[in-house]
Amino acid sequence: MRSFASRHIGTDGAAQSAMLSQLGYGSLAELMDAVLPKGIRAETPFGEPVSEAAALAELRGMADTNTVRRSAIGLGYHGTVTPAPIKRNILENPSWYTAYTPYQPEISQGRLEALINFQTMIAELAGLDIANASMLDESTAVVEGMLLARRASKAKGNVFLVDKDALPQTKALLEHRAAAVGIELREFTFDTIDAEGAFGALVQYPASCGLVRDPSPVIDAIHAVGGLAVVAADLLALSLVKSPGEFGADIAVGSSQRFGVPMGFGGPHAGFMATRKGIERQLPGRLVGVSKDSHGMPAYRLTLQTREQHIRRERATSNICTAQVLLAVMASMYAVYHGPEGIREIARAVHESAREVAGALKSAGYELATESFFDTVRFSAPGRAQEIADTARERGVLVHTPDADTVQVAVDEEWAETGVADLLAALGIEAAEATAGFGTELARTSEFMTHEVFSSFHSETALMRYMRRLSDKDYALDRGMIPLGSCTMKLNAAAEMEAITWPEFAGLHPFAPLSDANGSLELIDQLSDWLAKLTGYDIVSLQPNAGSQGELAGLLAIRGYHQSRGDEHRDLCLIPASAHGTNAASAVLAGLRVLVVATDALGNVDMDDLHAKIESNRDSLAALMVTYPSTHGVYEETIREVCDAVHEAGGQVYIDGANLNALLGHATFGDMGGDVSHLNLHKTFCIPHGGGGPGVGPVAAKQHLAEFLPRDPREAPLEVDGLTIGAQPVSAAPFGSASILPISWAYVRMMGESGLVEATAAAVLAANYVASRLKDHFPLLYAGENGLVAHECILDLRPLTEATGVTNDDVAKRLVDYGFHAPTMSFPVAGTLMVEPTESEDLTEIDRFIDAMIAIKEEADAVAAGTWPADDNPLVNAPHTSEEIVGEWTHPYDRTVAVFPAGGVGANRQSQAKYWPPVGRVDNAYGDRNLVCACPPPEAFEV
Amino acid sequence: MRSFASRHIGTDGAAQSAMLSQLGYGSLAELMDAVLPKGIRAETPFGEPVSEAAALAELRGMADTNTVRRSAIGLGYHGTVTPAPIKRNILENPSWYTAYTPYQPEISQGRLEALINFQTMIAELAGLDIANASMLDESTAVVEGMLLARRASKAKGNVFLVDKDALPQTKALLEHRAAAVGIELREFTFDTIDAEGAFGALVQYPASCGLVRDPSPVIDAIHAVGGLAVVAADLLALSLVKSPGEFGADIAVGSSQRFGVPMGFGGPHAGFMATRKGIERQLPGRLVGVSKDSHGMPAYRLTLQTREQHIRRERATSNICTAQVLLAVMASMYAVYHGPEGIREIARAVHESAREVAGALKSAGYELATESFFDTVRFSAPGRAQEIADTARERGVLVHTPDADTVQVAVDEEWAETGVADLLAALGIEAAEATAGFGTELARTSEFMTHEVFSSFHSETALMRYMRRLSDKDYALDRGMIPLGSCTMKLNAAAEMEAITWPEFAGLHPFAPLSDANGSLELIDQLSDWLAKLTGYDIVSLQPNAGSQGELAGLLAIRGYHQSRGDEHRDLCLIPASAHGTNAASAVLAGLRVLVVATDALGNVDMDDLHAKIESNRDSLAALMVTYPSTHGVYEETIREVCDAVHEAGGQVYIDGANLNALLGHATFGDMGGDVSHLNLHKTFCIPHGGGGPGVGPVAAKQHLAEFLPRDPREAPLEVDGLTIGAQPVSAAPFGSASILPISWAYVRMMGESGLVEATAAAVLAANYVASRLKDHFPLLYAGENGLVAHECILDLRPLTEATGVTNDDVAKRLVDYGFHAPTMSFPVAGTLMVEPTESEDLTEIDRFIDAMIAIKEEADAVAAGTWPADDNPLVNAPHTSEEIVGEWTHPYDRTVAVFPAGGVGANRQSQAKYWPPVGRVDNAYGDRNLVCACPPPEAFEV
Repeated sequence: MRSFASRHIGTDGAAQSAMLSQLGYGSLAELMDAVLPKGIRAETPFGEPVSEAAALAELRGMADTNTVRRSAIGLGYHGTVTPAPIKRNILENPSWYTAYTPYQPEISQGRLEALINFQTMIAELAGLDIANASMLDESTAVVEGMLLARRASKAKGNVFLVDKDALPQTKALLEHRAAAVGIELREFTFDTIDAEGAFGALVQYPASCGLVRDPSPVIDAIHAVGGLAVVAADLLALSLVKSPGEFGADIAVGSSQRFGVPMGFGGPHAGFMATRKGIERQLPGRLVGVSKDSHGMPAYRLTLQTREQHIRRERATSNICTAQVLLAVMASMYAVYHGPEGIREIARAVHESAREVAGALKSAGYELATESFFDTVRFSAPGRAQEIADTARERGVLVHTPDADTVQVAVDEEWAETGVADLLAALGIEAAEATAGFGTELARTSEFMTHEVFSSFHSETALMRYMRRLSDKDYALDRGMIPLGSCTMKLNAAAEMEAITWPEFAGLHPFAPLSDANGSLELIDQLSDWLAKLTGYDIVSLQPNAGSQGELAGLLAIRGYHQSRGDEHRDLCLIPASAHGTNAASAVLAGLRVLVVATDALGNVDMDDLHAKIESNRDSLAALMVTYPSTHGVYEETIREVCDAVHEAGGQVYIDGANLNALLGHATFGDMGGDVSHLNLHKTFCIPHGGGGPGVGPVAAKQHLAEFLPRDPREAPLEVDGLTIGAQPVSAAPFGSASILPISWAYVRMMGESGLVEATAAAVLAANYVASRLKDHFPLLYAGENGLVAHECILDLRPLTEATGVTNDDVAKRLVDYGFHAPTMSFPVAGTLMVEPTESEDLTEIDRFIDAMIAIKEEADAVAAGTWPADDNPLVNAPHTSEEIVGEWTHPYDRTVAVFPAGGVGANRQSQAKYWPPVGRVDNAYGDRNLVCACPPPEAFEV
Repeated sequence: MRSFASRHIGTDGAAQSAMLSQLGYGSLAELMDAVLPKGIRAETPFGEPVSEAAALAELRGMADTNTVRRSAIGLGYHGTVTPAPIKRNILENPSWYTAYTPYQPEISQGRLEALINFQTMIAELAGLDIANASMLDESTAVVEGMLLARRASKAKGNVFLVDKDALPQTKALLEHRAAAVGIELREFTFDTIDAEGAFGALVQYPASCGLVRDPSPVIDAIHAVGGLAVVAADLLALSLVKSPGEFGADIAVGSSQRFGVPMGFGGPHAGFMATRKGIERQLPGRLVGVSKDSHGMPAYRLTLQTREQHIRRERATSNICTAQVLLAVMASMYAVYHGPEGIREIARAVHESAREVAGALKSAGYELATESFFDTVRFSAPGRAQEIADTARERGVLVHTPDADTVQVAVDEEWAETGVADLLAALGIEAAEATAGFGTELARTSEFMTHEVFSSFHSETALMRYMRRLSDKDYALDRGMIPLGSCTMKLNAAAEMEAITWPEFAGLHPFAPLSDANGSLELIDQLSDWLAKLTGYDIVSLQPNAGSQGELAGLLAIRGYHQSRGDEHRDLCLIPASAHGTNAASAVLAGLRVLVVATDALGNVDMDDLHAKIESNRDSLAALMVTYPSTHGVYEETIREVCDAVHEAGGQVYIDGANLNALLGHATFGDMGGDVSHLNLHKTFCIPHGGGGPGVGPVAAKQHLAEFLPRDPREAPLEVDGLTIGAQPVSAAPFGSASILPISWAYVRMMGESGLVEATAAAVLAANYVASRLKDHFPLLYAGENGLVAHECILDLRPLTEATGVTNDDVAKRLVDYGFHAPTMSFPVAGTLMVEPTESEDLTEIDRFIDAMIAIKEEADAVAAGTWPADDNPLVNAPHTSEEIVGEWTHPYDRTVAVFPAGGVGANRQSQAKYWPPVGRVDNAYGDRNLVCACPPPEAFEV
């Protein structure tokens, strides 16, 4: 019977033969022999594939060995009720999860609107002016807050004040990250605030122990020295307690997990960051703003975009280049569904439940750490904490023990809904009169979520239609090809996605006892092992929850390695000019200096320049970062030579795994000389892009670097305030975004070695076929020996632009009229388009794309020939909306050319499957100049 | 925290107040007091609601008490692998499951295409000329085949020949159904065929025992006497064995369950029926055909439609007025995904597995019943059958024991995928050389599924896009209101849908031991109990898998009751003129004569006519069928008087529950005098319409009718060929469409009494609000006292048509341009539109609809005023496609009027959420004249 691989790979035998003929090769193997440098070929002996049903049965078996007890652990992760329509219509809907980051705003208005709802909700709950479109998690958001405080602060010091009562995982992460960039951390309690020499301060609000307190003393103290205050806040509590902004905080961070996103053994969830006016242009991460389109109507877009897609190498201030869009969309829809009053009701019910628990504890004779709490109650049990926790666990409830004498329990929406009887029983206490909770002086009186979007969709029918309406505005993989070079927009198979919403995987708290997570750990171990085999490394950490974090972890490991050998002076990182901007940014954040190595005319590393730079920096050389195949989509013949040269000088080789889809099963980074790499599970290993996150960026390394990587808590436990995590963390949760790892597990299991080998070859075949058919229409920028490319090809539009005035932007927008997402624009070379068809597209779709590109070229030629004026033609006016074609028509081409240029006849005519962009071309400059990043008032849309 | 009811009901307190103001009432209670006749009010004491999470937890608890062993039972139900993308993108996608029956073809082209794929697949596999769009299940399809044979046959006899080796459940159903319509059944074996006096014959192919044999002797014998041959065939086997058509069969029936639809403890699945040319116009059920649209392009539609939507009362030949569209779509997509070669591969693997089992059995010394089998192997085990079955069950495998000396096992796609080792182990035998299987003389050599649609979408990416493309052509509840009177298109909540795909509910074989189905049975018992309470009856059977089957079961019970009392002569059924056509059709099929009772000017039963007809038919009066509230949407004040009059004359009262949504929680059928009713779980109880099925039509009755209803096998077991089912079946499976019952269970549980009471009132409020706001624009056809309607209102368009020439068809199609599904057309009165907003629509959407209707009225007035010609205006030209507005425009109104008539400004302008019909108005007459019911060749679509 047919294999999963035959369904994952879009081209069947007949199609592959036809494509191979076009290229002049007889078989996939022959093509791969021609394209891959002989020197790097390596076997990756690996298992046989299993069917979808068998893989799901294995996953079910692992799920069944997880034990999901009810959590009262808290610490930033809370039980929440995911509204069923949001789970079904967002998390389980390819229209949302297969979308790409909204760099092309005209075809992304739906998720941009959902994100601006998110930003509005966050900013208003935080009482601040502007919020970004999400962070990776709360703890990394705190780190980013620290870095933002440093660069935006007027204070001269190098000290960051850290609340002793911050979340333990945040404190651990801060320590690892601050050390790398030379920031000194100074822990404080509210009694011992010393802001001397500090540029910023972190307050946890409410505190990790549950205490709701006025953060003003800290904020005032840090302001007094010219520093900035970062408040890490609980989003649900903010609906009832005064907001950070009202206390004067400059920056608020936190997690939106408890707004309807399952805990998932740690993630993914959307962290958040909001700031006051004045520092918003220094916000890290992605920011959605309002601009206007070519018809003058408001339109959403990613704003201040350049700083992220093209992170500025060594001048970088953050390496965050992604977000947790899918999870932010879920949280925003949770807010849209419940509305401000619904959110307040949930918060009040949670608070009420906590007060009941506190009352029962007091009545049972326990001493409470404080009665001023929101949802978390800490109490003394001298010498008995472990016993109480053990008993509770036997009774099905997990609690936290900060130390041997103290227990704390946190209640949440789930507890509020069921009542706390089981929690009291687990603690062995009786219900009693509730305590009073936090004082009225801290009660929130200001409004939030006042925009009508938060009061229009409270019935399921209305919400369902709103979600559909938004998704209909967007173009995702379920409509057609997204040929984005370097992004590997391949199939995210439904079978791969099945397990992630199973409660056994989705319901685990990240700090649940590891013995409750046998199934998840087995999956993590298997996947780590497979990834190590497939990359030729010895060890893999799945903790980094984005590619950028994987890079950082790998570079921190290199730095740690050198330091452990006394090579403190090795702090220079060589990076080829063609590298992703993130590479340099991560190096900076790992405490390394960056030196750029030139690339030659073919996009390869300039070996002379490399040797020269190694030579002149022998003593300080820490690492070389290189992407393989290169960001130009070429297999460099010299990779072994490059690695050897670096090693010879005492440096380590970091190979960026962004382009692993061109290599998997045919060669390994470890074998070709890499010491460490990060992978992008959201590229090669089928985790969906989710409209701009989640991502997972495992770091893989050789044994000598193992001890410097983020550590598994089973092997290198690190205890902070009674919480056990792994040493050298780069994410808030020990296993990062654990709940989506079943996707990659399933992919590898169902493909097996044979499937992966074929997939890589099919991806390379597709890219070369596109290159071959288009090269007479658009010059191919780079190619390797035999004139072949790897898994993507760069079309050089500069000659066309020069000849006709038609830009690559025009071509990209015109592709929308033809029913396509644009290829990657101006990366790695300005004025080009980089096309990556992946192995999942079938020949029909690939040919449809090629035909569209050729037709667009002809249109550009018509402009050059004067058939159409340079300022009024189908290219510069693209994309065309339905609204404009029903109105007055003054263009020198007709409406059919505008919106149905792909033509077709009969059932295949374009009108039968037309994607209609909801807005015309978006004005980028206007949006950057006029920064509006919250839901615009309805009047803004009046025509 | 907010209740589920507050999310199910679209109007919140503020909206309800505004609507009540419009009507002049102060509260929902006041409105209900005014609208409901006092005499019928009745409490339905009932439980409190629980939250979505709590309901799902209860369902999970029940699921966990089911034991899903691997099935080798067969008998028409087989394990199958549902492709994950089909499960996710069809079964779990509201774009497919919330769609209505495609009576409005312009907004249903997607599912119509999927259904024509289904018809093509069935017809070609069966080797016949034409197939319908599905039947309810295999056994009822056999009954329909028998009835078709009777009416299409030239033979004079009254005998139907039944294969002794037909499926046991089919034989039981045939017996019950044949008796009701006076057909004599004559069982035969191939040695004892006596066609004398027969009009038709049924052959099971392969036979129930597994035997693959040439059915020609039976076909030839029945043809010899002028009768018709019905072959009940296994769809997967047909890919390898000669088709019924090749043997000369006239009719083929069967089930498409094993094409990717879970067994689900019995259903729902799509049965099928195909016929040769010459009798296709007598096909029961729904038939999709190809016609052309107003632009001359091919367009799909339901063809020969009148015979079903308006079943012809007492001249009816079938009461089948629905299909299993959602399941037929799934099966068709399974065929599209696998293609002919993929289907053959699966069949070959299944056959190979069966041969392995047979070889092992032979080698272990068992005697096989036959070696000519496809997937089912029967063997002798004298005196040991039960012991073998028990042992196998302990080892996790279920087998069938036709008698004490015989065991049979059937393998399927799941066994083929895993291998049969577990099955052999369960039987305690060792692997051995496989036997040969059926002979080459029966091997299929003819092609099937040759249309390109079956070879274009074999990768998951391609399939996903095909499914999305089709669903984008359709209008379902996820886009907007479907205000179909009498159809109750309310919310199908995601939480209600969750459990149906859980393997514990989806994986059970319908003939699994009942002790393996504890959870399902608990759910069935609870739901039955709740429905009995809510309707005021004593007993409920959930077996009928459509409303029509519930009616039939109820009428058969009435007939059985009279017969049991010696009242054989009571065979007359009174039916008001306003009744659904199905009522009369069901009565005929229950062996009753139909006499129509007049209705008065207000749509109520004409009491004088009723009394007169009762008087003149006192002795023969069997029953009165009446719908309450009436099909005119009015609560008749006289219902108790009606019931009393019928009872006084010795008749029984059948109350059709189609309009229960106007009554639930406020009155009960039992209390007002009904003896028996059917309910439509796909209306009042939230089972989604699925684009035209599944439906569930439970029958509920008072105690005295209990023994004549379809019986629960636990109470009145009926054994046929070793299979235990319940007596008096009306469906193939003992519990009908058991797998979707969790939907209604969850609805009732999450609403509780308070929620149901409010929902009914909110539905009545919405209908009266629509009536009140529209009555000055369109005359309201009927209203009760106080000028109020029940849950729907009828707008009389005849005056408008007379004055302007604009028909209700024009208004219905013009509503598409405004972004709506049309209301019910010309039922119960020609020339009218019946509007039922349900409780789930919010005020914004209701107002949007009302505004559209008023705007359309103004457009019609403009036609009357001569502003637009009668033959060229936005109404007669509706709906407008995107294709026509980009072309030459010659109409006297502009393009904006054509496609964006709803206007709106800013973010709310219609272009931002436009539904584009893919075709113009479809020519119905052309389609009926030119019957084409299979996928048209690509050339048909050439412009």
